[in-house]
Amino acid sequence: MLWWQVTVAESRFIDATDATVGYTFGRRDPVAVIEPYELVRLRTWDCFAGKVASTDDLPSKVCQFPYLNPVTGPLYVDGARPGDTLAVHVVELTPAADVGFSSTFPHFGALTGTATTAMLHPALEERVWQYTIDHQRGTVRYTARSCAFEVDLPLQPMLGTVGVAPAGGEVRASIVPGVHGGNLDMPQLRAGTTVYLPVGVEGALLAVGDGHARQGDGELCGVAVEVPMHVTLVVDVLSEVSTPVPRLETDAQFMSIGVARPLEDSYRAAHLDLVRQLVQLTGLDELDAYQLVSQAGSAYVGNVVDADYTIAAAIDKALIAPVLPYHGAHKVLRAIRGGD
Amino acid sequence: MLWWQVTVAESRFIDATDATVGYTFGRRDPVAVIEPYELVRLRTWDCFAGKVASTDDLPSKVCQFPYLNPVTGPLYVDGARPGDTLAVHVVELTPAADVGFSSTFPHFGALTGTATTAMLHPALEERVWQYTIDHQRGTVRYTARSCAFEVDLPLQPMLGTVGVAPAGGEVRASIVPGVHGGNLDMPQLRAGTTVYLPVGVEGALLAVGDGHARQGDGELCGVAVEVPMHVTLVVDVLSEVSTPVPRLETDAQFMSIGVARPLEDSYRAAHLDLVRQLVQLTGLDELDAYQLVSQAGSAYVGNVVDADYTIAAAIDKALIAPVLPYHGAHKVLRAIRGGD
Amino acid sequence: MLWWQVTVAESRFIDATDATVGYTFGRRDPVAVIEPYELVRLRTWDCFAGKVASTDDLPSKVCQFPYLNPVTGPLYVDGARPGDTLAVHVVELTPAADVGFSSTFPHFGALTGTATTAMLHPALEERVWQYTIDHQRGTVRYTARSCAFEVDLPLQPMLGTVGVAPAGGEVRASIVPGVHGGNLDMPQLRAGTTVYLPVGVEGALLAVGDGHARQGDGELCGVAVEVPMHVTLVVDVLSEVSTPVPRLETDAQFMSIGVARPLEDSYRAAHLDLVRQLVQLTGLDELDAYQLVSQAGSAYVGNVVDADYTIAAAIDKALIAPVLPYHGAHKVLRAIRGGD
Amino acid sequence: MLWWQVTVAESRFIDATDATVGYTFGRRDPVAVIEPYELVRLRTWDCFAGKVASTDDLPSKVCQFPYLNPVTGPLYVDGARPGDTLAVHVVELTPAADVGFSSTFPHFGALTGTATTAMLHPALEERVWQYTIDHQRGTVRYTARSCAFEVDLPLQPMLGTVGVAPAGGEVRASIVPGVHGGNLDMPQLRAGTTVYLPVGVEGALLAVGDGHARQGDGELCGVAVEVPMHVTLVVDVLSEVSTPVPRLETDAQFMSIGVARPLEDSYRAAHLDLVRQLVQLTGLDELDAYQLVSQAGSAYVGNVVDADYTIAAAIDKALIAPVLPYHGAHKVLRAIRGGD
Repeated sequence: MLWWQVTVAESRFIDATDATVGYTFGRRDPVAVIEPYELVRLRTWDCFAGKVASTDDLPSKVCQFPYLNPVTGPLYVDGARPGDTLAVHVVELTPAADVGFSSTFPHFGALTGTATTAMLHPALEERVWQYTIDHQRGTVRYTARSCAFEVDLPLQPMLGTVGVAPAGGEVRASIVPGVHGGNLDMPQLRAGTTVYLPVGVEGALLAVGDGHARQGDGELCGVAVEVPMHVTLVVDVLSEVSTPVPRLETDAQFMSIGVARPLEDSYRAAHLDLVRQLVQLTGLDELDAYQLVSQAGSAYVGNVVDADYTIAAAIDKALIAPVLPYHGAHKVLRAIRGGD
Repeated sequence: MLWWQVTVAESRFIDATDATVGYTFGRRDPVAVIEPYELVRLRTWDCFAGKVASTDDLPSKVCQFPYLNPVTGPLYVDGARPGDTLAVHVVELTPAADVGFSSTFPHFGALTGTATTAMLHPALEERVWQYTIDHQRGTVRYTARSCAFEVDLPLQPMLGTVGVAPAGGEVRASIVPGVHGGNLDMPQLRAGTTVYLPVGVEGALLAVGDGHARQGDGELCGVAVEVPMHVTLVVDVLSEVSTPVPRLETDAQFMSIGVARPLEDSYRAAHLDLVRQLVQLTGLDELDAYQLVSQAGSAYVGNVVDADYTIAAAIDKALIAPVLPYHGAHKVLRAIRGGD
Repeated sequence: MLWWQVTVAESRFIDATDATVGYTFGRRDPVAVIEPYELVRLRTWDCFAGKVASTDDLPSKVCQFPYLNPVTGPLYVDGARPGDTLAVHVVELTPAADVGFSSTFPHFGALTGTATTAMLHPALEERVWQYTIDHQRGTVRYTARSCAFEVDLPLQPMLGTVGVAPAGGEVRASIVPGVHGGNLDMPQLRAGTTVYLPVGVEGALLAVGDGHARQGDGELCGVAVEVPMHVTLVVDVLSEVSTPVPRLETDAQFMSIGVARPLEDSYRAAHLDLVRQLVQLTGLDELDAYQLVSQAGSAYVGNVVDADYTIAAAIDKALIAPVLPYHGAHKVLRAIRGGD
Repeated sequence: MLWWQVTVAESRFIDATDATVGYTFGRRDPVAVIEPYELVRLRTWDCFAGKVASTDDLPSKVCQFPYLNPVTGPLYVDGARPGDTLAVHVVELTPAADVGFSSTFPHFGALTGTATTAMLHPALEERVWQYTIDHQRGTVRYTARSCAFEVDLPLQPMLGTVGVAPAGGEVRASIVPGVHGGNLDMPQLRAGTTVYLPVGVEGALLAVGDGHARQGDGELCGVAVEVPMHVTLVVDVLSEVSTPVPRLETDAQFMSIGVARPLEDSYRAAHLDLVRQLVQLTGLDELDAYQLVSQAGSAYVGNVVDADYTIAAAIDKALIAPVLPYHGAHKVLRAIRGGD
């Protein structure tokens, strides 16, 4: 199907409420049924479910396990079946607030002992930072707590968490990343990006959340600039197309995401998938594709803090033009956005 | 309560059938309600659900994801509530067959590329080994496939998988280990051992499976000598006692199990928990307990092949006698067995 | 000292010959004495010591351990003492050939079993790729071996190996990265970049090699587009200034390099050093600096194939302007280049 | 040669003095020339070079980098050439003191942030423990510092560090483990054990040190019960026999030691070598040997604190009797001891 033949359904809006947010992928009933190519607008809560509203609100006091990282949904995607691929194109991301929050959190983050990188050290101080968002100028302002230092950083909205119900009857906490997507925390997951996920159950049961006004590579302290988000999505179902790991596609690159520990396994899983995609797309044999990625590939560090770490292996689509992954699904979904 | 005051209920038997086995921890309805101190007899299928019956039955052909590693249960434990600890004492383990099977499995095991330790190598050859069990002599016979070599190994029955429903609404595949127990694959989980697990949901929802006639440290190729098993259990509920990681207790030692990747994190998590238990039991401060474990601790490698790796940190109970972990729960459950 | 007061010594040239290249950091006698601010021109051999000259020359046949990764030097830097920092500014890098080579190498690389990520798999096929360098257009041409596919990639010359003699009397193979620098394989180590290394012995004993016409992130197959290189350097000695890990500085960013396994430890070591540098430079306390890097930091993957893996943690210098690391050493060295 | 034909040279004694101890493997001149089958007696200093003499002597104050972990030697072994294997049989180990010391050390150990597992946490308290050795009863007494707790542990003397000069011109700090041996910290390296190491240079340049009165698995806090030691050794040179990783042999088992990070790579390297040894000794093909180790292998955790971690993969020699590794070298060396 060519994009100009696509009939775009009326956009609808799914707000984030106690009834429409959840804390797992799988288990919950859908809050809406959506169609491929339909523009879907929704709102997401921030990862603290809105409970951190000032630098006095320590997350460990105001939040309670497992009520962290709420996701809006799930959305039942008409026609999606196990074995298919769900393509989720992020049309637009706009922070739904003028401030964002970050924090340290006891025994969470890359430079502190955690439940698994277990240490005898007491937890680091729990501290909250408030960021001011200037939507006009496209900035978020970092304000130090210990001194007068302030600095503006680029506003680069992204979604930390996009996922579907896992296969095999599993239900995963929304704070966990996996083959089903979930809390990938990849800064490349922005407006203009398409995410490909393996459908594990009928209807896929898509849910999204964990908006970040911006994030450094690896999400060092474990918490980005957390904001509620207005999200516009459009999805497609690629029938009987398998997707072994979450993948991203932008206008310039396509990427495979490794989700694993230790971090080198994340790097490996991402790159093996990218090599295999190249083989499939280009006719190169595996060693030739391995060589091409060795010289031309980019590796983006997503998170080094979650239950599993994420790295994306990326390559410029120009190198293999005019071939396109998933037969151009990204281009079609991108086109629905409007003027492109 | 002292053990001689315990009234042991009549032992009952729960067979392994399509109705009583499952492939997840969480989600499924209980197949029976059991009481603390009740002797429970059950049968488990082997990890292949009985589908490997000769060296010609390649697991990747006869088994189908996610129907691997069936567990019998779940059993609803009367009185168990989130926040409690479930103590599961293994009274008896008897292989329910005269043969066991092991195999390589494509892209699974410690010395092969896997989905996460991703490699360009094609899968190793898939091969099945049949072991003959001599119940009288207490041996399992290894028989090579490539030559005439045969040798007897000690029969040392253990349960690879003992778990409860996870907290936070999660449902995990039975093949995955975690804080909820599951596929720990610890050779120390034998008759005479008590397992302590954190109760995540009402009734705990205990299930067990994956009997091994024996297993080497780390379960190198990913598959032990797999057998159906006759299991006799007795459980106790320790109210409002928390158990942050799975723990084991034998007559001689107590152990904390780390479940994590990379393997050093498993070592760390196990040892931090053991240090903290010692602090709680002895009055040593953390550094003194750290020092004692540094010189007196044992580390047992469980698996280096599953979704997360397991190591147990162990210490001799004699070192801190007469103090006992969990106020002597193991001793009470052990006594119910009979003559001890 | 301000840069315009610097007297630049005459540039001299040190060619790569059997007498001037070596295979270790430490142990060897200096081949020249150089002064701070002196322009030093030298030539380096490629990592194969020139022995791979066509796609028929398999490295494992034509090269012999330990004669891999030759470095030109060592250069005795006048005035450098243990406890100082050596700043090495790369003024210019020009491939000294019109072709470059890459290859797979038995049991070396990120997607193959290795001596430590030990696997039962036989080695992947050993294959050599020849790249044509177009100095005018600034490209290197990838040519597949299995089919007709060709594509041009940007020529982005870098030095894989820049190091000094280690402290503590150690001598390390030139193929190994470490705190002393060595085989860091960071694509950011280009013309215009300053490298900071801890001086371990009198005279520092600087040596460089392993030029790459370009390299993908992580050096996936373990071998970049290897070329001999014309290198122009200028160094400075920062007296009694300590440098705990190798650091890089460009006009835009400064970076700390973690050298460790597993890869998350490389990420951690890099980021802790960057946080501490920020504390020192800005007056932020540690938590505030941790937070700033969490949102504004970049992580660059260097290699995931060498004896230890490398990741650089980077931050834009504009965020903390006008403060400069090492009191502006990079700016001074950069200025010596000429017109800047 | 059969053992009863061996002429045992007069035993000689090499004391530990400033002239006979060093802090590296490689670089130093030999302190003695020894012959195969000669009984060699020597004394080693403890890892603190004797500078910790009471619980008030904090290692970080009284010791200075790189003067840690002194080794006595090197001994030039007559006839040892690169490509050979050096077999070092430990005849006797007797602590040369009535007290031993352990300690925490800033940013060293498994449950604390380190230079590579880098954390924002300040160092744990540095504390020293003094152990009383009762040679008669065969015990070491642990005495808590924070309370009155005391307990006796079995005296199980071992050598933490046994190594030769590395190949390829490298020189390694004596505190680092590697293929050349060095600071392996394996509790199985006791009297009665034979260590096999690859000869890297003429004369091998054997050195030993780091005696432990005992050690827990993994050397949790990074420091065992450190003692000076009387050591009796006898060596053999196995001409043109290669040893890819350090190996141990006792009367009951043979073992391969993996030296790597992360810890699973240490597990992998150890087990791959053990599988390959079995193939060589028994005629099993690789998969059959893999299977046998999967069910019959033991994994011993050496250290999870040094520059690289160590795990030994072990198997009972009885399983493959009467075949013996290294053509019975252990048996010959063992016999020289006397009555066996």
